Amino acid sequence: MNVLTRRAMLGGAAAIAAANTFPTTEARAAAPMLGKQGPSFYRYKIGDFEVTALSEGSVRNANVKNMAVNKELPDIEKALGAAYLPTDAVTNQFTILVVNTGKNLVLIDSGFGDNGAPTVGNLATNLTAAGIDPKTVDTILVSHFHGDHISGIRAKAGAANFPNAEIMVPAVEWKHWNDPGEESKAPQVWKGGFANVKRVFDPIAKDLKQFEHGKELVPGISSVDARGHSPGHTAFVVASGNGKLLVTSDTVNHQILVRNPDWALWADMDPAMAASARKRLLDMAAADRMQIAAYHLPFPSTGFISKQGSGYEFHPAYWQPVL
Amino acid sequence: MNVLTRRAMLGGAAAIAAANTFPTTEARAAAPMLGKQGPSFYRYKIGDFEVTALSEGSVRNANVKNMAVNKELPDIEKALGAAYLPTDAVTNQFTILVVNTGKNLVLIDSGFGDNGAPTVGNLATNLTAAGIDPKTVDTILVSHFHGDHISGIRAKAGAANFPNAEIMVPAVEWKHWNDPGEESKAPQVWKGGFANVKRVFDPIAKDLKQFEHGKELVPGISSVDARGHSPGHTAFVVASGNGKLLVTSDTVNHQILVRNPDWALWADMDPAMAASARKRLLDMAAADRMQIAAYHLPFPSTGFISKQGSGYEFHPAYWQPVL
Repeated sequence: MNVLTRRAMLGGAAAIAAANTFPTTEARAAAPMLGKQGPSFYRYKIGDFEVTALSEGSVRNANVKNMAVNKELPDIEKALGAAYLPTDAVTNQFTILVVNTGKNLVLIDSGFGDNGAPTVGNLATNLTAAGIDPKTVDTILVSHFHGDHISGIRAKAGAANFPNAEIMVPAVEWKHWNDPGEESKAPQVWKGGFANVKRVFDPIAKDLKQFEHGKELVPGISSVDARGHSPGHTAFVVASGNGKLLVTSDTVNHQILVRNPDWALWADMDPAMAASARKRLLDMAAADRMQIAAYHLPFPSTGFISKQGSGYEFHPAYWQPVL
Repeated sequence: MNVLTRRAMLGGAAAIAAANTFPTTEARAAAPMLGKQGPSFYRYKIGDFEVTALSEGSVRNANVKNMAVNKELPDIEKALGAAYLPTDAVTNQFTILVVNTGKNLVLIDSGFGDNGAPTVGNLATNLTAAGIDPKTVDTILVSHFHGDHISGIRAKAGAANFPNAEIMVPAVEWKHWNDPGEESKAPQVWKGGFANVKRVFDPIAKDLKQFEHGKELVPGISSVDARGHSPGHTAFVVASGNGKLLVTSDTVNHQILVRNPDWALWADMDPAMAASARKRLLDMAAADRMQIAAYHLPFPSTGFISKQGSGYEFHPAYWQPVL
């Protein structure tokens, strides 16, 4: 009797139960393919702080040219190939941080919630898997107002996904996205962004805390000027004891931009300023051998930066299976 | 009232419930540190096959010199530093594969089970988290007989951890570890290995299937000669459709050995032959841009190899949050 016939007759579990301790090849039953990634959360320490990196998912984008509007397609394809990546599409990842400082439970950016593609919106599941109740988040730090960073603050139906969190936003970013003059002159691609900012923030506008760059926002976490990707784009430094983490937000959106810091991502609203911020932050990370966390680098999105020729190289941190 | 006093009075959950929607800094309650890594399993496809990489844990070894018995300590420390790793200890990781070919559910090596340090033995938990019942594993492929690869086949108390699996072992390896002459002349460090081989395999010796190199063991998985690390040390090629995975087993035990393939790990039983196997397999992976899985590289232990100067570089595969 062949394997398929036995399987059809007995079904998976029954076939296994019927098998001998050392089944012959014929008696082997196929286990079902599981077809699902594991819960993608990862924990690491920065000094006494506990950081949990949580995947929100990924989006596949067939418009490869968008990776660098100032380069030709073959250059981009070559860079993708050199990074052992497919060249026919770019998969954009989203990794959100929760930092437990012992005093505060801080979410840095929020993903899409239920406002995105079917391949995103995994933050809620991953928070549950990680043992973090969204109601215990007391602070949300927002790096900038692009949809993939703020939409998850509020569900499509209107409810706040982190109902007990104080929300802190960059003052310059707030000003830009709430300025009717900016909205009217914005290119088409950003029009929806203005509407989304209203959807997310209007119900709570009076309670938002606006912050400047170079300030400590909660004890141990400070804002860093990283303007360019957006008008008020912000990086963060998480510091505890000897530990320091540079949260680069969207200064480095992809490994090929780490290697080619002058390339202009379609989403860099001021490309020259974005490239300058990218190089400033990567220089700092390389010089100080500072650990970084980057929203769009592959999960768990943390590692180190070295200077390599005219660009940089990302070295993923070693996975720690035991904390 | 300060944070600590409130916390002491109310306790964590009560404090949160008592908090306003936008709590003031004083009213914030600290969430407990979770102190535990997530379940470390990771899934990827090779053609139609589904591979699940499962962490068994890690062991910290303060004897850094053991990484390269033919080099001086400062050379090793320099290489660790260049890999953004601590220089005062080496953390050795163990990642086990389960390959679902659709026809077979194959475990490649087994970790320690309950025969190791407290920081290992996580395979069982991670299998459960991954939705894989050890009873459904129908085949175990063994790369070699070092304790961290075979101990988990049998629990300390004697039970088989994968009771329905046929176990396939390299014939040359079997011969070495069951040869009383080899045992009597073995250096002290390997004496325990002979005893462990008896513990694991003696109760089932007659049912073991011995294999040669260069053979297909189950449909889609073949053995590859990788002798040197141990007398019968075996790598595997997993092949389905256009997908191919080179399971390097212990030919590359650490990133610094990828970069320095001539370094002699303490556990390389024939260092010259081990270095030659290392270079042969890494050359193949680099030339064919073949994905590799390596038992001791950091979880999820899969990526690509490029040739760099006199050595190689490991490029971790991009994490796929969605399968």
